[in-house]
Amino acid sequence: MAQPHRPGEFDLIARYFAPLAAGEAGAFGLTDDAAVLIPSPGCSIVATADAMVAGVHFLPDDPPDLIARKLLRVNLSDLAAMGARPRAYLLTTAFPAAIDDAWLAAFAEGLAADQAEFGIHLLGGDTVSTPGPLTLSLTALGEARDGAVLRRSGAKPGDTVYVTGTIGDAALGLDSLRGHLGGLGPRQTEYLAGRYRLPQPRTPCGPRLLGLAHAALDVSDGLVGDLGHICKASGLAAVIEAARVPTSEAADEALAADPELLTRILTGGDDYELLFTAPPDAAAAVAALGAELGLAITAIGRCEAGQGVRAVDRDGAVLDGLGEGGWRHG
Amino acid sequence: MAQPHRPGEFDLIARYFAPLAAGEAGAFGLTDDAAVLIPSPGCSIVATADAMVAGVHFLPDDPPDLIARKLLRVNLSDLAAMGARPRAYLLTTAFPAAIDDAWLAAFAEGLAADQAEFGIHLLGGDTVSTPGPLTLSLTALGEARDGAVLRRSGAKPGDTVYVTGTIGDAALGLDSLRGHLGGLGPRQTEYLAGRYRLPQPRTPCGPRLLGLAHAALDVSDGLVGDLGHICKASGLAAVIEAARVPTSEAADEALAADPELLTRILTGGDDYELLFTAPPDAAAAVAALGAELGLAITAIGRCEAGQGVRAVDRDGAVLDGLGEGGWRHG
Repeated sequence: MAQPHRPGEFDLIARYFAPLAAGEAGAFGLTDDAAVLIPSPGCSIVATADAMVAGVHFLPDDPPDLIARKLLRVNLSDLAAMGARPRAYLLTTAFPAAIDDAWLAAFAEGLAADQAEFGIHLLGGDTVSTPGPLTLSLTALGEARDGAVLRRSGAKPGDTVYVTGTIGDAALGLDSLRGHLGGLGPRQTEYLAGRYRLPQPRTPCGPRLLGLAHAALDVSDGLVGDLGHICKASGLAAVIEAARVPTSEAADEALAADPELLTRILTGGDDYELLFTAPPDAAAAVAALGAELGLAITAIGRCEAGQGVRAVDRDGAVLDGLGEGGWRHG
Repeated sequence: MAQPHRPGEFDLIARYFAPLAAGEAGAFGLTDDAAVLIPSPGCSIVATADAMVAGVHFLPDDPPDLIARKLLRVNLSDLAAMGARPRAYLLTTAFPAAIDDAWLAAFAEGLAADQAEFGIHLLGGDTVSTPGPLTLSLTALGEARDGAVLRRSGAKPGDTVYVTGTIGDAALGLDSLRGHLGGLGPRQTEYLAGRYRLPQPRTPCGPRLLGLAHAALDVSDGLVGDLGHICKASGLAAVIEAARVPTSEAADEALAADPELLTRILTGGDDYELLFTAPPDAAAAVAALGAELGLAITAIGRCEAGQGVRAVDRDGAVLDGLGEGGWRHG
């Protein structure tokens, strides 16, 4: 936080951000030019960064604590997808003049809540003002023993394709928030909106996939599109059995009312579930891991020679309209 | 780069950013969810982040290569101020629609030039679009053996205050670019503008100050203001002998025409020189370091008991008007 850009920035950092760094000795209370992170013995650093802009990635009047937590969580999800354990994060904020103390307090509370949940701390950052929309950037730092991480490129023909949790909730939640999804009760609507606004990074699961999974990533662009990334990086094809893709009760209800939503579920983004491939002989270990973590881990398909991703129905017929699935969002 | 936000982002990353990551194996060509940085044996990670907004920290029509290099360099300067050696960086960019291929190519060229100069690589990041001004955020990762870094808080009464390079050029350069500084020839004007637009982080010097300096930071807020940060963190006072503050030939010319500019020189920001304190018995070692690096390192004052910073003239009279020096800029 070396560069003050307006009067009061020091106060703002001291009041809202320094407390978030209190648990990390190397952050020096955000009063020095940089921070020190001591890796655990034998560990390499795993780093990822994401940016979010008001009006593009969230609505300006979204609850500030949820904006903060989503920003943090999408980065934690990237670390989980690499099999890394989160350690700390740096945050830069470009605040428009309309951001007031109440907003900042709620934003910091959101960060504090997730710091406690995920065992991490703020390490540093910068706070500037902007004449434009609120713009946030977060760099998450994790660690991995001996630099061993999960890549997108290790999938092999014959691998089973797995996914954690349920798929499609976030896309349906966004549709619902935009008024494009009718017919659901308030409980289901709230559930889906919550899945969009507050993803659950699979932080405990990711590092446990090291040695089990051949390839992994997190579902941010949509199931079909992201499986396509694995296929491209690994030089193979994959088949999804649509009927095996795990969906929530709320998504099932929406789907019952409008079967066309299946495409949206298979291609919508922002799920932040882990998608990975593992050899058939890892099936028992994968099942045991899911049971231990209390996390649904579902086999949804397989890898094979070739290229591209196709989804098939119960009869093995290929579903149409998924070609460019998930490569656009927001 | 896990989250695509508009069609073409993958192309943009592949074309302009992936080449910047080519020299760092752990960046995985920016195709995975996160990157791996293996610290050198015995080293801790040192991390810092800064954000810059068009119209606030630079002019929208500034040369893109210089915008890129300044963003990188202000972060490298923070690492140098901690005594850390730079390793890699993550970059998030929020691009307005007006940013075109030519702009991006020049921006990437600027990063490539400085990567070569400082021996670092792009490790990861994110590219999003914004309806607002161009907004950039950069996290620089360095390393320090055994986590040993320079802090602001170690200065002791009796320490000599040193500064590298020359002071005030950047502030005068900004004044000149804004048309607020007349009477200089084009060569001097260009020199000062260049010092504002392209700071020179003291990367070779910073790590060499470990074991010599008691406290250090980089001059970003202005000499008086930044020395005030050291004084506050260290619980002491400091006196600057104004006549000993090193100034460039261009600044001397401006000062000869308008002696009132001394205040601007002592309090203006963006110099990105290193300001540090060291005990009197380190004088010979400091001089030898400057000679070895070919870098002017000038003693400009001393630390003493008390609080606050004052500047005195040749007769020991205290200069007025420096009280809040440097706490505002941009």
